[in-house]
Parts: sequence; structure tokens; C-alpha cells
Amino acid sequence: MSFPVRLCALVGRFADPRVAESVAVLVPHLVSRGVTVLVSDDAQLGAGAAVKRVPESTIGQKAELVIAIGGDGTLLYAARLVARHDVPLLGINRGRLGFLTDVMPQDMLACVDAAIEGRCEQDRRPLMAGCLRSADGRTAEALARLDVVLQKLATGRMLDFETFMDNRYVNTHAGDGVVISSATGSTAYALSCGGPIVEPHVGVVVVAPICPHTLSDRPIVVPASTLVEVRLLERPDTRAQVACDGAVLGELVPGDALEVKPARESITLLHPSGHDYYRLLRSKLRWGRGSLDHSR
Amino acid sequence: MSFPVRLCALVGRFADPRVAESVAVLVPHLVSRGVTVLVSDDAQLGAGAAVKRVPESTIGQKAELVIAIGGDGTLLYAARLVARHDVPLLGINRGRLGFLTDVMPQDMLACVDAAIEGRCEQDRRPLMAGCLRSADGRTAEALARLDVVLQKLATGRMLDFETFMDNRYVNTHAGDGVVISSATGSTAYALSCGGPIVEPHVGVVVVAPICPHTLSDRPIVVPASTLVEVRLLERPDTRAQVACDGAVLGELVPGDALEVKPARESITLLHPSGHDYYRLLRSKLRWGRGSLDHSR
Amino acid sequence: MSFPVRLCALVGRFADPRVAESVAVLVPHLVSRGVTVLVSDDAQLGAGAAVKRVPESTIGQKAELVIAIGGDGTLLYAARLVARHDVPLLGINRGRLGFLTDVMPQDMLACVDAAIEGRCEQDRRPLMAGCLRSADGRTAEALARLDVVLQKLATGRMLDFETFMDNRYVNTHAGDGVVISSATGSTAYALSCGGPIVEPHVGVVVVAPICPHTLSDRPIVVPASTLVEVRLLERPDTRAQVACDGAVLGELVPGDALEVKPARESITLLHPSGHDYYRLLRSKLRWGRGSLDHSR
Amino acid sequence: MSFPVRLCALVGRFADPRVAESVAVLVPHLVSRGVTVLVSDDAQLGAGAAVKRVPESTIGQKAELVIAIGGDGTLLYAARLVARHDVPLLGINRGRLGFLTDVMPQDMLACVDAAIEGRCEQDRRPLMAGCLRSADGRTAEALARLDVVLQKLATGRMLDFETFMDNRYVNTHAGDGVVISSATGSTAYALSCGGPIVEPHVGVVVVAPICPHTLSDRPIVVPASTLVEVRLLERPDTRAQVACDGAVLGELVPGDALEVKPARESITLLHPSGHDYYRLLRSKLRWGRGSLDHSR
Repeated sequence: MSFPVRLCALVGRFADPRVAESVAVLVPHLVSRGVTVLVSDDAQLGAGAAVKRVPESTIGQKAELVIAIGGDGTLLYAARLVARHDVPLLGINRGRLGFLTDVMPQDMLACVDAAIEGRCEQDRRPLMAGCLRSADGRTAEALARLDVVLQKLATGRMLDFETFMDNRYVNTHAGDGVVISSATGSTAYALSCGGPIVEPHVGVVVVAPICPHTLSDRPIVVPASTLVEVRLLERPDTRAQVACDGAVLGELVPGDALEVKPARESITLLHPSGHDYYRLLRSKLRWGRGSLDHSR
Repeated sequence: MSFPVRLCALVGRFADPRVAESVAVLVPHLVSRGVTVLVSDDAQLGAGAAVKRVPESTIGQKAELVIAIGGDGTLLYAARLVARHDVPLLGINRGRLGFLTDVMPQDMLACVDAAIEGRCEQDRRPLMAGCLRSADGRTAEALARLDVVLQKLATGRMLDFETFMDNRYVNTHAGDGVVISSATGSTAYALSCGGPIVEPHVGVVVVAPICPHTLSDRPIVVPASTLVEVRLLERPDTRAQVACDGAVLGELVPGDALEVKPARESITLLHPSGHDYYRLLRSKLRWGRGSLDHSR
Repeated sequence: MSFPVRLCALVGRFADPRVAESVAVLVPHLVSRGVTVLVSDDAQLGAGAAVKRVPESTIGQKAELVIAIGGDGTLLYAARLVARHDVPLLGINRGRLGFLTDVMPQDMLACVDAAIEGRCEQDRRPLMAGCLRSADGRTAEALARLDVVLQKLATGRMLDFETFMDNRYVNTHAGDGVVISSATGSTAYALSCGGPIVEPHVGVVVVAPICPHTLSDRPIVVPASTLVEVRLLERPDTRAQVACDGAVLGELVPGDALEVKPARESITLLHPSGHDYYRLLRSKLRWGRGSLDHSR
Repeated sequence: MSFPVRLCALVGRFADPRVAESVAVLVPHLVSRGVTVLVSDDAQLGAGAAVKRVPESTIGQKAELVIAIGGDGTLLYAARLVARHDVPLLGINRGRLGFLTDVMPQDMLACVDAAIEGRCEQDRRPLMAGCLRSADGRTAEALARLDVVLQKLATGRMLDFETFMDNRYVNTHAGDGVVISSATGSTAYALSCGGPIVEPHVGVVVVAPICPHTLSDRPIVVPASTLVEVRLLERPDTRAQVACDGAVLGELVPGDALEVKPARESITLLHPSGHDYYRLLRSKLRWGRGSLDHSR
């Protein structure tokens, strides 16, 4: 990567007034810095905007920097565009702090300047590859930044499934499904399933059962290099679905399997210098000095 | 109820060899005691069986006693047939102890004799009434013995919903849904959601969020008389479903509501004398003296 | 109880400046309403205060109303003074909302007037009686408003103990101890041990193991009328202690037992009209509409 | 390490009849293989045993192999004797499978032969160093294989403490204390505190709060290289204690701190070939195919 950045793409729901407000400030600022601003050709931006419209699928190739404006969902969307090209991502949140979009609106211009000039901290995060293997030979694959989730589709039914780590049998589970989460995803769905918080640079994956029938069926932390396999067992009325970062990959029937392993690709997040993960965590989980109450 | 019982219905999956085996012993035994045996007219029983076939929907009216052979699912099925008629239920399990089908095969004949002669303990359990109220005015209702569950249908999406107790606002939740469980249902799905075990004769309902987004969103125990209401809030791609004891009652969209309140009906379980709930609990949860391990 | 109240006692840590500030406003106000103000004879109040000093042990007999100023701990202290006399309690918090001290400083004078004139909601809460029975025949007893806790004293050692409900064996536990909590106490220590939130007027007790060795050893909800017994088993280096509402009742050695049952006594809390338990809960657990975050 | 082993030490509670029984078989077997058997000079072994008695403190220096007979507690005791000398450990359990003593009595002689001849799998496990730093300058240190635990000593009192990772402030906690657990220790006390299961070769430490006052105060997984620091805050009646693998290291008062970091030392466990961690886990947590129950 060479600095200063010359080609920068913006990603976001531009129809959202708060996002539009940031974009209206950001585009002239980038242009004044000599940066060409790319947006997807179907972006809902006013006619006068000094931007270059390109097919969304080419953003990963063309941009040297992607700025995602919105919430963590927007940043994950942008990450899918650049995953195979290793373009760094800067996440501007539109009001509420996110785990990934950690630049507050008031710090936006200073951080963007730092990103353009190469003064940000680079934070490389690995991706997971989820692969759904049907018993009839079909496969479907997707990358996941946060988690790969196998879950029942029919309310009132449990799934029976077996888990394997590097081809070794681990357990037979009954319950609502299983979350296979990266360190970064540990504070998303896996946390709601009783999983631990994982410092985002620890090289592990969390395999957390969802509402397990057996109370000793607890989350397991394994090396990130592990090939995690889940096989769906026969049971009446079984319907299950797999989602990667919340996007549906496909359905499973008994006999089908899900495999999750490390992807070759990774993404690079940019943070303002002085970025502190634990401050983010305290803010998101409402921790901290003020929470003490001595009634007990 | 007058004794000895003259009309007894059998309910179960008769095609299951283990169930068939019990039935083959049970029918002649009942006949030898002067009892007329009723089964549903579509029951898969051999031609020679000395049973009287009646429409399943009339079993509740005609039988003085219903014997369910199978697991807890079978007993719940039988409970639906008799809920409006207060016919007592005896549950024979087909091998593995259930919370409701607590008569072991080897004790079957002695317990059946006790039930016929009125020597069993009667264990009355209240029912809940679940009612789905669509914003467009339609309603759907069902009784629940264990739980009424509101749950998302789309993997990777959360539900936003509000809860009310007796028309008082309680909380706004984000997560996979909510279980409204009777005391009896506390050891079923609600337990997998972090709910407590409730002694089955305590007059309470447990409202347990499923995989809640907020970690302080914990199960709440309220009086069984409470009108519990859940209102689904607007959110992109929201799809939710309600099930009573695992049977689907219907789907919800934002604006729809679920109400759960005590039903007028109840069911009566029969237990052999000396029945001990805590022994059942120890067996099902694998508790007990043998579990101690002093490695810590 | 007759109104208006003529004799009102104040309880609190008067040396705390925030408490002193409230008292400095409260005493003249009460006097202006014709109320005689009682305080304990060792209360740290300025010489000029228009109060009558009495032995603390006589407050329960003499006062018609007790106002506790401070946190929930102060209210529990006051409750001990009046438990055998059923004098109503009004809790003024000194800044931070409590589950029991739910009157905010700015509403103090209006609420005190309402209490004097009998316009408050009366909220009767049962008490539990904890009794420690040593194997050598000694006993020690205390009342508990929130919980009775049996806990290990030596770090690195587990306790082995058995639980009984109404003399029926329930389970053998290994772990750090057990909390026997009233409905009111459910949001105190029992909540930290994985117990449910219990609406405070539900007539139940929660028996919640503390850090149990066995993962299926979950909190149990039983009727408030239950005699709960805990027997300490033999194990090397066993040291255990019992506390009622945080106050130590005594130590146990293997062979000793703890009994908890409903007390004859109860306490009466006064609330301003329009009091809403769920609003309190939302505030204390930081719930509510603002907590939603759609990053997932 | 050279094979075959010539000097092997036995460690265990020889007064326990089950241990004595194993030793009575093991000693002649080792001698017949040309191995000199060392025991501690205060070992309670019969006069005729063909063993060499040495001071316990010299076992680490002299032995080429240590066989621990008993439970995981015995193996941890043996680990302390050899930690600074990297002598491999073989754990024979005396009836009940342990996480560390995974050789069943019936397989003892075959495994011992494999260990002598160098045919066992070597399983290196890191150790943690716990250091208690008093505000007055004193320090106390110990190694821990499973966990370092900071815990309150007085029932009914909470601790207030702050945590730091590599000198960065993480959170302020109120509760019963905190467990700092190695991967191996994740299935011991940390699991009872809601921590995850960690595959034993993952290079992480779990920092799990004990009965935290705040429900979002969840276990955190950090790299094993992290310097974890816990500082005790001022609070009335604070009494806290630190234990390493269950052995008390000392007491803390407000102002004191606990530091945990990776130790230079490690231990080497020997396993029979074909050792499977997940089989051990299934056995210890009572998982597996047989646990399914389709009542839900």
C-alpha cells in the first residue's frame, strides 16, 4: 500500500439521513485532499456529488481504501467487497459506537486524513470459510468475519447434530443449533449463547451450542486452525439453515454437513492511533467504574 | 370419577415396536380386569386386538382413564385429547424415564391396576392458554401444558419485542425470542434458555428470553395468574412463529401480539404412590451422590 | 395503624454528608407537621436537632413509622429493628435508586407527607427464618429479608452438602455453597449465581447453588412455605459460614445443618402511589428501549 | 531424556487402600524391568517394598519419570515436585477418570512399560506464575498448573477490584472474586464460574469473574502471554485470599495486587498412544450419543 491514498470508496446506506449527512461532509473533504471518491453505481447519492460511480463488484479491485459509514453491519458488508483484495477498511459509525465501526462522527475528518496518509493502526483480522456439503454432493461456500451459524428453522423442534474437530468426534448435541465464532464474533451472537469474550487477536474459534438440551454442553475454544465439522442427524421434521455473518448460505437436511475452517483471506481494519479494545468493550457492555452499587 | 374404571383409552405410536410390545401385554390385562379398551380408529394395531375403535376426537368424552405409552411427547399429545374433559392420564414410558411418563415398563401392570382401582396419587397441573392476535384482527388459540414459545424463523436475524405483565410494560428485548413456561415446562425448553427449575406445583410462570442480546435480560418468575403479553416490533426481515408445546400456532409479523394466560382447563396426572419429583429430577439431570469428584 | 403518624424514627448513617443533608431538611419538616422524631441514642446528629433520642432497641416498639435514609443496606438494617413490630418502612435513597429505597431525594418531602397521612401503597414482604443447627446441639437463629447464604470460607476448597425440601432428599452438591433467597432477594446475590428474577410478591423461595461443580445443578424455585435444609458433609478442610442478609450467623462444620423456613414476622414497605416494580427493575438492570443495537 | 528409564519415582497417598493396591503391583513390575523405584522418605509404604527412599524435595532432580497414582489432585502435587526439572509425569487414576490422570488401572502396566521405553505421547503444558504484591512491598509467588484464584474470605461481603491486561485497564468488578485459568484449568473451577472449555493446547488464559454483581461481566479469553493484574479496591470489611491450584498463597487487603503471567517452567504429561482429549471430556461431562432424549 502506498500513501497518500488516491482512490477511496465509500460504502453505506446513503438513503439514511445520518449517513447522508456524513457523506455530504466527507466527499468534498476527500476531493480537497486530491482523493478520487468511488461509490457503487446504484448508490443513492445526489446528482451533484463529485464521485465516480463504478460497479460494486469492482470496488475491491479499484479502491485503495474503503470507508464504511453506518453500523457494524455496514462494515461487514464492505468487508465482503474487499475480502479477496486486502483493501483496508475504516468504519465511521453514525452515532452509536460499534465493535468494528469505532470512529465517532466528530473524529471523522481527522481519522480519514490519518487513513489517507498512512498514520492509522492496521488491525488484521482473519476470516473463516464456511462450507455447506449436502449429502447429494452439492456445496456452497462463503466467508465469515464474525460467525457461521447452524440453526433450526422450525419453532418447537430441536436439531440433533454431531461435532468434529480436525476429524475427531467431539460430541452429539441436541438443541437449537451451534455458533462457530471467530474471536471478533465472540461479542456478537456467541455471547448471547453463553460464550466468552475473546480478545480479538487471539487465534481461536469458539464453538458455542445454542440453547443446548444438555446443560453440560458448553462453549469450546479451539485453535483458529481447526477444521470444525457439524453433521446433522436424522430426526423427524428436521429443518436447518446456515448463515455466515447473518447472510443465509443454505439449508441442511439430515446427512448434510457444515465445515468451517480458516480462510486464506483476511481483512484489515484501520483504527485511529490510541485505539483501545477494552475501552470499546466497556462502552458496549456498559461496564466500568460507575457500575458499582454497594447494596449487597 | 368412580372406580373401578370401566373404559380406558390407549394412546401412543403403536407402530413403534417397544410401544407395541407394551400394548400387547396391556390390552389382555385390561380386558381380564373387565375394562373396555378404546383406541383411535386409525390406530396401527393388529386385527386381533380386543379393542374398540372410536374417533380420536371422542376419546376425551368417552374414556374414564387414558394411558399414554411412549415419551413425554406422547403424554402431551394425549393431554390435548382430554384437556377439556379432565380425564386422568397415566404415562408409561417405553424405556427411558420422562418427567411426565414416570412409570417404568416393569411397574406397568401394577400401576395400571392401581389407576383402575383409584389407588394412584392425583397430580393436577394447570394449563396455559396461548393466543396470537394479529394486527389485522385475526386470532388463533391453543392450550399449552409446558410452554408457549415465540421465536424467530430466519437464521441470522434477531427479533425486537416488548413484554407486558398484566398490561404493565416490562422490557424491550432483542434476541431469538421468548419462552413462557409453566412450572412443569421449566425443565423443558426454558431450562436450556437459562431458566430455573420450578417445583411443578408452584403457581408461577417463567418468562425466559431466548439468546438475549442484552446479558442482563434474565428469566423472570411471575404469578401463574399473570397475563403475559409479547408485542413484536418493526425490524427489517422480521419473521416469527409461535408454538404451544412444540406445535405451531401461527406466524407473527411486526405489530402482532402473543398473549398467554391461565387456561380454565387443567390435566390430572396419575402417579404410583410414593412418587417423588426430586428422584425424577435427579435421574433426568444425572444428579446425585455419585456425581462428586474431588479433583478440585 | 392510625393516621396521621405522631412518632416517626429516622435510621441511617448520619455521619455520611449526603444522609446528613437529607436529615437536616427532614427533621424540621416532620416537626412542622407535628411529628415527634426519634433517633437512636448513639446517632451522630448535631446538638441542635429537634429529635428525641431513645435506645435503638426500643425503636420498633415506639415508632409508628421508620424512615430509612441511605441504600438498601440501611433499609435492611432498619427492617431488623422493626421486624417483630410491623412498623412500616419508608426508604429514601441518597442518590442512587435501590430496590428497596425507591424514593428519590427530590420526592422525599411529598412522600414523607403521604406516608404520615396514610396515602402510600403498603407492600408487605415476608421474612425467612434461618436456623443453624450444630451437630452438638447448639442453635443460632436470625431473620432474613433477602437471603440466607451458606458458603465456604477457605479459598480453593469446595463444600459437599445435601439439600432437603420438607424433609425430602433433593440433591448432593459440590461447590462454593448455596443461596436461599426470597422473591425480594432474587435480584441480589441469587442473581449473580444464575437465579431468576422473581416478581417480589410471588410466594416462592429460590435455592441457588454457588459455582456448582456439576453444570446441571441449577437454581430451584419452591413454595415459600418449604422447609429448606442443607446438611454439610465430611470433606478435608471444610470450613463454612452462614450469613442472613449479609450478617454472619455462624460457622458450620461437617454434620451441622442449616434450616430455612418462613418467619412469622414480615415487614411493610411504603411506596409512593404509582410505584412500578418493573420500572425499578429496568433502571437497576439498565434495561429498556434505548438498549437496542442492531449490529447483529 | 534417554530411554529406557532407569529411575522412576512414585507419588500418591499410599495410605489409601486403592493406591496401595496399585503400588503393590507396580513396584515389583518396575523392578523386574530394571528400574529403580524412588519414593519420598516419609511415604507410608510397607517395610518390604523394594524402593529407595529419598527426600521429597530431591525427587525432581533424581527421577527420570514420575508416576502419580490417585486423582488429579495427586498429579498436581507431583507436578509441583518436578516443575523446575521437566521430568515427565504419568498419572494413574485409582478408579475414576481424571482430566490429568487418564490411565485406567487395567491399562497401568502396559502404559508404564510404554513410558519407560519412550513410547508415550508427550504433552507439554505451560504453567502460570502467580505473584501477590502487597502495598507494603512484600511479595509471594507460586506456580499454577490450573488456576490462580482471588476470592473473598468473608461470607456476605463482595470484593471490589480492577483488572488490567498488559498494564491496560480492563474493568472494575464487584463480586466474589476472579479465576485466572490456564487452558488446562478451564474444566476445573473456571467452568463452574461460567467459563468456556478450552482445548488444552490453545495458548490462552481465561479470566472469569466469580458471581459478578454485573451480569455483563463475562469471562474473557486472552493470549497466554498476557500479564494479568488484579488490584483490590477499598471497601468496608474487605478480606481476600489468593490460591494457586487450590493452595493458599496469601491474603490481600485493599491496595494489594495479584499478578499472573506465564512461567518459564512447564510440565510434560505422558499419555498412552491414541489418547483422545475429547473422549476424556465426554466421559467427565457425561456427554455423548446416549444423552439424547426426544421429549422436546
